[in-house]
Amino acid sequence: MEDIFQGYKGRALEVLKKFNVRVWGKAIIDTSRGEFQGTVLPRAENDDDTHIVLKIATGYNIGIDIFTIKSMKEVGYYKATYKIPEKEFPYTPNLPNVKLLGTGGTIASRLDYRTGAVIPAFSPGELYGAVPELADICNLTTEKLFAVFSENMGPEQYKALAVAIGKEIENGIDGIIIGHGTDTLSHTAAALTFMVQNPPVPIVLVGSQRSSDRPSSDAALNLMHAAYTAGHSDIAEVMVCMFGPTSDEYGFLHRGTRVRKMHSSYRSTFRTIGDTPLATVNLKDGIKPIKETYNHRRKDRKVKVLPYFEEKVSIVYYYPNMQPDIIDSLVDNGYRGIIIAGTGLGHVNKPLYSAIERAKKKGVHMFMTVQTLWGYAHMYVYDTGRDLMAKGIIPAENMLPETAYIKLGWVLGQTDDPEEVKRLMLTPINDEITLREPYNGYLIYQGGVPEVEEFIRKFRK
Amino acid sequence: MEDIFQGYKGRALEVLKKFNVRVWGKAIIDTSRGEFQGTVLPRAENDDDTHIVLKIATGYNIGIDIFTIKSMKEVGYYKATYKIPEKEFPYTPNLPNVKLLGTGGTIASRLDYRTGAVIPAFSPGELYGAVPELADICNLTTEKLFAVFSENMGPEQYKALAVAIGKEIENGIDGIIIGHGTDTLSHTAAALTFMVQNPPVPIVLVGSQRSSDRPSSDAALNLMHAAYTAGHSDIAEVMVCMFGPTSDEYGFLHRGTRVRKMHSSYRSTFRTIGDTPLATVNLKDGIKPIKETYNHRRKDRKVKVLPYFEEKVSIVYYYPNMQPDIIDSLVDNGYRGIIIAGTGLGHVNKPLYSAIERAKKKGVHMFMTVQTLWGYAHMYVYDTGRDLMAKGIIPAENMLPETAYIKLGWVLGQTDDPEEVKRLMLTPINDEITLREPYNGYLIYQGGVPEVEEFIRKFRK
Repeated sequence: MEDIFQGYKGRALEVLKKFNVRVWGKAIIDTSRGEFQGTVLPRAENDDDTHIVLKIATGYNIGIDIFTIKSMKEVGYYKATYKIPEKEFPYTPNLPNVKLLGTGGTIASRLDYRTGAVIPAFSPGELYGAVPELADICNLTTEKLFAVFSENMGPEQYKALAVAIGKEIENGIDGIIIGHGTDTLSHTAAALTFMVQNPPVPIVLVGSQRSSDRPSSDAALNLMHAAYTAGHSDIAEVMVCMFGPTSDEYGFLHRGTRVRKMHSSYRSTFRTIGDTPLATVNLKDGIKPIKETYNHRRKDRKVKVLPYFEEKVSIVYYYPNMQPDIIDSLVDNGYRGIIIAGTGLGHVNKPLYSAIERAKKKGVHMFMTVQTLWGYAHMYVYDTGRDLMAKGIIPAENMLPETAYIKLGWVLGQTDDPEEVKRLMLTPINDEITLREPYNGYLIYQGGVPEVEEFIRKFRK
Repeated sequence: MEDIFQGYKGRALEVLKKFNVRVWGKAIIDTSRGEFQGTVLPRAENDDDTHIVLKIATGYNIGIDIFTIKSMKEVGYYKATYKIPEKEFPYTPNLPNVKLLGTGGTIASRLDYRTGAVIPAFSPGELYGAVPELADICNLTTEKLFAVFSENMGPEQYKALAVAIGKEIENGIDGIIIGHGTDTLSHTAAALTFMVQNPPVPIVLVGSQRSSDRPSSDAALNLMHAAYTAGHSDIAEVMVCMFGPTSDEYGFLHRGTRVRKMHSSYRSTFRTIGDTPLATVNLKDGIKPIKETYNHRRKDRKVKVLPYFEEKVSIVYYYPNMQPDIIDSLVDNGYRGIIIAGTGLGHVNKPLYSAIERAKKKGVHMFMTVQTLWGYAHMYVYDTGRDLMAKGIIPAENMLPETAYIKLGWVLGQTDDPEEVKRLMLTPINDEITLREPYNGYLIYQGGVPEVEEFIRKFRK
């Protein structure tokens, strides 16, 4: 017997029954937040019985809160035929063993990646059904660590991930993939770079920007690239593996400390800032390093896991006319560290000086980054910068504001001694500070296209 | 008789005399902030008698606070021969009349642009001496409105500038240049776009990234381009005129609402975000519009000056694990408006929900922007976004966080009515919100180089 309410249960199921709307029915839903039209999608096994998932005309899947629903009406029916065949993931003796750690949502589902809705492929068998190429790349096992949306990831999850990674490495794994929503993927990558040092195997964070059932989805490709990298790369670092910039011919590997999301919806959203990407990856050519030096894969099982984080750290993003109360409030609320994202070479306005002095007296650790994202905090150039340094703000060179936030939290989790904090902050663990930014690391990197390379060479600083 | 302490006075002069160090002397200065070596530069007329300006080996000029000086020693002497011949700025009847409004520092000096030190060319005669090409472009007059470093510019200066611009327009000027430090130049450009609406003539903000005495200085070129634009452009909008991206063959004109500083030290730092630049400018080819539609120059003297600003507005730049106290403190401190720079399509974490609800109850106006800078806040896609909208946060489409901050201050200076605030915020005045972002507006724009255009065309979203 066919399940016309496939995957729905509890209160969501009651609502569908009440209004006689089936899974795969085209429905018009009147809610307190407006009217929605689309196809009711099946749901996968999950604990949520308060949403009905609708695929709307834009291609996005949205979850309708059942408590907002005033009425629903089925106005058509079309059952999509795709499904994931559940098959046993084949074991091939010569292939590397890769572990996929899930953090939330699904990866390589046939439907929305992030809401966790509908035919999620997570078990090795499901992933094999959805992306059979994986079986030619590695022997895959999976473990769901938590079910958290990307924007709700934080120190607790970073620490748990670091510990889990450490265990996998001890147990002999050849490479690790971490499935992650894209919103804060780069923050987690920075945290794991600091928390899991000198790993002998690749640690690859991957996500997707487009729902797997959309023709333009990057989910399967990113996952294949991540699996290849985890299993075969000689680069043993914490990396982000996401869609390349020009085509789907290759993906980029980014260092976890220098990567940032630069577009809210494009697939080519992750960019290495202030440097070139670490490498390109595709299944035809394998891994092609762009950076000359990196941490190499080793046979040993040595790894330093440092799962520390002081949560009383904040970012102050400077804007004109900022008033001292912004910093005073942080001090009063017990914050121990502040990353300032200043203007220009690392400046803020004069009205903040008194608050900065007060923060310094209370032992708050303050570091300056630049909101231009590219370039260095050079605070010796102008009066303003030198004044701020004299008041105790330390320039964090070309560390990204987000990376500096994660690193300061990690450092303050270990020490409150100002000199030691400064030393740890300014000693790069994996290129979060570099000596120089290459000319072709500004805004866009494009290797392999001679005309563009030539253009970038001419691109004057 | 030669002035061996040229331009120094008061306490700074006393220090030079005490240590027998002359202007143009190569000096080693021991200070409480370390040792500095360089050439003591002459100072221009100014009210500062507490700094000695030193050109150091990097090419930067730095101002040494005299109160930090322990000792100075002259170890050499070389008088630079360049000087600005002060000549009368020629008046040519057929050329347009352009007014340069100064905000601080100097423009097209032979030395440091921003510290205001040494042979600043500001009067028409000095500017003519420094950049004689200006006399072929326009009839220039100048007025120094204030002397404020870029990072100290704020609402008070925005309002005064708007009023001054209005008066110039009424008095018949053909175009206006505003000399400005680069740190917050784009914020001022956004403010003037909102405060001076539908102007009949171009309003052009210009600065320079490199000191005028350095071979790579962009000061003179930017100024010539700005003068040409102010005097001759058919585009009558608030624009930023700065160094182009590939060479000094042309400058870019950027809309004041869509421009952002993207590198702390490169000359090609100002970029139009989420769109193509408005136009290119050089003296050979004039203005070449890239955007098809713009506000055209008019003969009439009509202009709407709206010099309003509510200062209790802030930006909250989201980071993982942000706690509600960040927003609670703003509410407690009487803030009336908050721009959130969220992750992804416009998200923050669940722990902030209660603080957001409380802020909303207190009548705080909250708008969502994206910290990816490129792309839109699309809050209907995920549960998180819809939850936040239900709590009263309004997505600001593709408005830049900085522009949204300036606009919300300007809007709240006029009304506190939620519906009117929303209407004003979401009704674009000059493309701070656009219907779509063109494919070649992502990260880098390069017109005129066919290979690069082709590359960008292939550049898949």
